[in-house]
Amino acid sequence: MTEMRTLKVALLGCGNVGAQVARILIEDADALAARTGARLQLSGIAVRNVNSRRDVDLPQELFTTDAETLVKDADLVIELMGGIEPARTLILSALRNGACVVTGNKALLAQDGPTLYEEADKAHVQLSYEAAVAGAIPILRPIRDSLSGDRITRVLGIVNGTTNYILDQMDSTGAQFADALAEAQRLGYAEADPTADIEGHDAAAKAAILASLSFHTRFALENVHCEGITSVSAADIAAAKDAGFVIKLLAIAEKLSDAEGGEGVSVRVHPTLLPREHPLAAVRGAFNAVFIEAENAGELMFYGQGAGGTPTASAVLGDLVSAARRLVLGGPGRTETTTGHVPALPIDAAVTSYYIGLDVADEPGVLARIAQLFAEHGVSIEIMRQTIHRDAESNVESAELRIVTHRASEAALAATVEAVKGLDVINSVTSVLRVEGV
Amino acid sequence: MTEMRTLKVALLGCGNVGAQVARILIEDADALAARTGARLQLSGIAVRNVNSRRDVDLPQELFTTDAETLVKDADLVIELMGGIEPARTLILSALRNGACVVTGNKALLAQDGPTLYEEADKAHVQLSYEAAVAGAIPILRPIRDSLSGDRITRVLGIVNGTTNYILDQMDSTGAQFADALAEAQRLGYAEADPTADIEGHDAAAKAAILASLSFHTRFALENVHCEGITSVSAADIAAAKDAGFVIKLLAIAEKLSDAEGGEGVSVRVHPTLLPREHPLAAVRGAFNAVFIEAENAGELMFYGQGAGGTPTASAVLGDLVSAARRLVLGGPGRTETTTGHVPALPIDAAVTSYYIGLDVADEPGVLARIAQLFAEHGVSIEIMRQTIHRDAESNVESAELRIVTHRASEAALAATVEAVKGLDVINSVTSVLRVEGV
Repeated sequence: MTEMRTLKVALLGCGNVGAQVARILIEDADALAARTGARLQLSGIAVRNVNSRRDVDLPQELFTTDAETLVKDADLVIELMGGIEPARTLILSALRNGACVVTGNKALLAQDGPTLYEEADKAHVQLSYEAAVAGAIPILRPIRDSLSGDRITRVLGIVNGTTNYILDQMDSTGAQFADALAEAQRLGYAEADPTADIEGHDAAAKAAILASLSFHTRFALENVHCEGITSVSAADIAAAKDAGFVIKLLAIAEKLSDAEGGEGVSVRVHPTLLPREHPLAAVRGAFNAVFIEAENAGELMFYGQGAGGTPTASAVLGDLVSAARRLVLGGPGRTETTTGHVPALPIDAAVTSYYIGLDVADEPGVLARIAQLFAEHGVSIEIMRQTIHRDAESNVESAELRIVTHRASEAALAATVEAVKGLDVINSVTSVLRVEGV
Repeated sequence: MTEMRTLKVALLGCGNVGAQVARILIEDADALAARTGARLQLSGIAVRNVNSRRDVDLPQELFTTDAETLVKDADLVIELMGGIEPARTLILSALRNGACVVTGNKALLAQDGPTLYEEADKAHVQLSYEAAVAGAIPILRPIRDSLSGDRITRVLGIVNGTTNYILDQMDSTGAQFADALAEAQRLGYAEADPTADIEGHDAAAKAAILASLSFHTRFALENVHCEGITSVSAADIAAAKDAGFVIKLLAIAEKLSDAEGGEGVSVRVHPTLLPREHPLAAVRGAFNAVFIEAENAGELMFYGQGAGGTPTASAVLGDLVSAARRLVLGGPGRTETTTGHVPALPIDAAVTSYYIGLDVADEPGVLARIAQLFAEHGVSIEIMRQTIHRDAESNVESAELRIVTHRASEAALAATVEAVKGLDVINSVTSVLRVEGV
């Protein structure tokens, strides 16, 4: 029997995910060696403070504050520090030294991915980041490898568990946003400062990564139109529910053709109505899922836990074992397939269906006038429903009008809504929400 | 710019899937070259009769009956003939010549996979077969690569669209099995001879492949306990529905420990009750899905089209592009990870929950006697529900008893059912079905 090679693994960061990665590397050493063909030796864990309390009991001698030295001596580097610096400098240093790098740093990838990918290409080593999108769910590898002979046309992702938990709570209990957020914070699903989640920034970084792999073009955060869920009201949710929809925060990347036959990709994050029978509508609580439409494969969905130390560690270790196998076999790095140059489209070019709620005067002919206005702007109405309310005390009647349009451009819709606001029979526009899956 | 290398692709078989693979290879040649770094040139299509009508209009000069010569000259061989011979001989010949092979031949893999895997290992080439399980759904690659740093504990798969369509029809319309089968045949979801589907043989071959990759051990068809859906009655479905369950034909592979701490894998196919809120319960019509439980990742589900020419072609092309990339980069073949030796367990060792329907005498003390009998055999009851029917004419009362057990071994359950049959208060055992997901 030949002696087994040892590969040195440097771990940068020991938070929620890092601590579980370290635990599994130690506890499952034999199984990982069998899978890999090499012993994966955890050579050190770089942290800011070696005496901090950790989620997991780990050998004290592994901890160091000297990340640079640790990286210099490693065959494989796992970066789980988060943030831009020093993560960026350490990853670039590792790649230049010929180490394979596994990272879960979505913010860094979305901001500066191209620099990192180029460095990995130059050094002929692997840079893997399955953990950066949808936690434990294998989604990047299937897109990159399994669907490499197909053409993805659209990606719809529930990629932020915090907002999915909040919207699910609002949907099932009727709670207002602020109350559902407070509950999510109490249960640990939302952080004390929830901005990155509820404003959609976290989902936007993931959208940029999904779009880049799906459309073989490098999209950055600045290409992603981003709206969070802070303005979604209990009334929006109730109205959507009543009409057979559920509201989800979706990361969307889809290929669109313009009138001249030019192609582009619309990458965006916003609250979206989905029909209750859509596979994504059943994704409850803090779970994540990514729904993919491809020309040949048709509809695919990938579902699982999108966060949490142990689930995310599973994705990190999958990348690590794959990179280690390649090192053992002596093969070359991965071919990057982000070779295309499909332009990112501005949000005005996005084409989707819309849900519009209007508070209107209860007068004859109102529906006809509104319908005509939509038609004049080239926005076709799929469903129009009016509900009359009578105030018990004042006996005054008001009418609520709910419209679901066929697919239309953001620009056409915005112009329509502006024009509708100018009608004297309109009291207010109560909601404008995008719809997918109809 | 360097000149692009050409890789010769031999296609064996031109049925439903093969014709679509040929079409895409020709139509998407430029995109595939961009993804791969080489031109994939379809060098020929081996068929039994070059003049047969095809689903797709393809250049007549590509067709040949001489598969051997075609294979000898190919860099990549796609085998979509099905059946054992001549597919087996041609694949072995291709591997020995150093060609990478992509196949969707589940029957051959389940019967003789180990021979093929060894030959591919020896020749340092890739043997890929994503299309053999769950059509378009990327499932084998995620199991092999993405979950390589985790431990899969259980796999539950809806991997046969024909039976899922039939059971779904029975569930939604109340139809009997024979009528639902006839409808499936009329719509093309079931073949004229539906034996391989409805008896579970097709699902059993896929179960062997899923189990082998999930548990790093080579399981063959003979290790799979197989029951089809022919004995599932409309009454079974109605009773399950009434109790909050749906009946699905599942391919199951799960790791079990025996009392002595020994480990084994139970691989089986049988009709199974699932709670309606389980993610697999929502998989309707001819769709497929695979639900995976892993120690670290937790619960994952992969959903999509399990059959059909174009969707399955997507999986074939994903394998082809991945193999071609490897050839272009000059890297080694894939490491096989089926290095373990976990024993396959007989069906008696399987541990699951059970649903038991009993037609019993409506007498005092019957429930207590039955409950005691279950307890004596070590089978714990989770739910017990009695419904009294009164025949309007005869005025005779009969009682129907429905029991859902906690997890118990097949052996214990079988002994319990035998004992129950011997009770004088039992008119008949109306159904015994396995339950997952409770």
